[in-house]
Amino acid sequence: MATKAVSVLITGANRGLGLEMVKQLVEASRDVRKLFACCRDPDGPRAEALQTLAKKHPDVIAVVRLDATDLCSIKQCAQQVGSVVGTGGLNLLINNAAVAVRTTMQETTPEELQHMFSTNVMGPMNIIKEFLPHLRAAAKASGTPGMSSCKAAIVNISSILGSIEGAKESYATYPCFSYRVSKAALNMLTLCASEELKKDEILLSVLHPGWVRTDMGGEEGEIDATESVRGLLGVMASLTEKQNGGFLDWKGRSIPW
Amino acid sequence: MATKAVSVLITGANRGLGLEMVKQLVEASRDVRKLFACCRDPDGPRAEALQTLAKKHPDVIAVVRLDATDLCSIKQCAQQVGSVVGTGGLNLLINNAAVAVRTTMQETTPEELQHMFSTNVMGPMNIIKEFLPHLRAAAKASGTPGMSSCKAAIVNISSILGSIEGAKESYATYPCFSYRVSKAALNMLTLCASEELKKDEILLSVLHPGWVRTDMGGEEGEIDATESVRGLLGVMASLTEKQNGGFLDWKGRSIPW
Ligand SMILES: NC(=O)c1ccc[n+]([C@@H]2O[C@H](COP(=O)([O-])OP(=O)(O)OC[C@H]3O[C@@H](n4cnc5c(N)ncnc54)[C@H](OP(=O)(O)O)[C@@H]3O)[C@@H](O)[C@H]2O)c1
Ligand SMILES: NC(=O)c1ccc[n+]([C@@H]2O[C@H](COP(=O)([O-])OP(=O)(O)OC[C@H]3O[C@@H](n4cnc5c(N)ncnc54)[C@H](OP(=O)(O)O)[C@@H]3O)[C@@H](O)[C@H]2O)c1
Repeated sequence: MATKAVSVLITGANRGLGLEMVKQLVEASRDVRKLFACCRDPDGPRAEALQTLAKKHPDVIAVVRLDATDLCSIKQCAQQVGSVVGTGGLNLLINNAAVAVRTTMQETTPEELQHMFSTNVMGPMNIIKEFLPHLRAAAKASGTPGMSSCKAAIVNISSILGSIEGAKESYATYPCFSYRVSKAALNMLTLCASEELKKDEILLSVLHPGWVRTDMGGEEGEIDATESVRGLLGVMASLTEKQNGGFLDWKGRSIPW
Repeated sequence: MATKAVSVLITGANRGLGLEMVKQLVEASRDVRKLFACCRDPDGPRAEALQTLAKKHPDVIAVVRLDATDLCSIKQCAQQVGSVVGTGGLNLLINNAAVAVRTTMQETTPEELQHMFSTNVMGPMNIIKEFLPHLRAAAKASGTPGMSSCKAAIVNISSILGSIEGAKESYATYPCFSYRVSKAALNMLTLCASEELKKDEILLSVLHPGWVRTDMGGEEGEIDATESVRGLLGVMASLTEKQNGGFLDWKGRSIPW
């Protein structure tokens, strides 16, 4: 199952879950006509797998530079995307790029907390704001009532480690102090944005991909990227206004804040 | 009712709730022997009321410079406090200083979000870390089992606007986007720190002071600083390990994350 969004943008698309999303969207779905696969360094060695995939689907995949910590690159990317999608707009924006560390509070330096914040919170805010005109255009162009990820939606990939409720139980085993703080902030950001943008019929959700065997999740992860992304895309495709401002895992199960 | 902590530090003590806490602690409680009233500019016009109060209680109140966004000033303050409290340590640290704005996400600039984050999240983390040795000393010196605010505790003043659960209902009326994001981050920070420091028998809680008529709360606030602080100090005095990592309002009522 895959989302039916016609135009999709994914950040951090050169490896891990982002790359797998690009793969599954382009291979399994005939509906996605334009896929903006964003990464920090499209011409560098870390983007080779993505570039190879893009060459197989040159009409669909556009590899675009976007560094979540660099507002200039976000603005340039938004401009490029705008010139491609035009009045049709951007249907689905997936804020997937993020950084993580496993340190405790006592091990966390100010620089580390700042880095988590810049990438995982400030980045998504700036990206949402710069792409808002394209999401609004998509909502207008759709002509259908209600909310959905094939009309106009923003999905922020967060983590169950961002659940404040859950931290009591899991902190001792998985501290990740600064990562948790940043993802809780991202969760609040998403809920606020969902309230602010509902009049524009733009849907916002927070998704947790599961504990996945990627560079970030490590080898002990519980599922692989294929399974996680299959789940995530299924959940995205099923989102309606009922899930607006919701926090769901890759199986669609609700997570407490 | 007042906390029985022997040594207390309050940030942002020159006006609003911070100043009122200093007042009530020094006037109503015979237990507080040392009160570190911190502010950004002890010699400036904004600290006049605090300095006047301090002159009335020169043995108890020490006005110390601390800017929550300046790690250097935090370190210097921690050193000064250490030289006063010695092995007795610091019993109660109240992270009260904060900034707020009422803007929506679309009105929020990157600079504003950064400023909220630096003051309301990074500040408390740095302060907790720098004062940790003094809190540990207090926990050790106490000789009593369990947790309490007269033994060793950190109270982070957050806000009901930091409740992610509550944002759905209140966002349209009180957007305060960047403030909410920062307070949700502070809430997560507190819960994580409470888990990390419980083996040291240092208690951590998040308190919401109510909607108070201060510069921040504005004239429409529901209660005045006297009432809010009376409540807050009562709640602080009643904290035990049961409330460790809890989110309570000035009446002791639990708030959802
Ligand atoms: N894996 C898990 O178990 C797990 C669990 C819960 C949540 N998540 C979330 O799922 C998402 C994807 O995680 P993942 O496992 O795929 O992580 P990953 O394998 O570490 O990949 C992270 C991706 O983010 C990109 N990125 C980092 N900083 C960036 C920046 N400043 N600008 C643009 N891109 C940047 C990386 O690009 P570079 O190659 O340039 O570094 C990379 O493409 C994240 O939001 C993560 O928090 C993962
Ligand atoms: N009032 C309310 O209705 C309300 C509701 C919920 C939560 N709160 C929370 O209650 C706490 C106190 O609020 P309030 O109403 O007393 O606010 P306030 O009247 O605006 O006072 C804020 C205090 O924080 C200080 N401060 C700001 N930035 C600082 C920095 N970088 N370093 C050190 N001090 C700094 C200010 O000092 P300067 O004079 O130097 O600026 C001032 O002393 C805050 O945490 C606030 O978020 C208030």
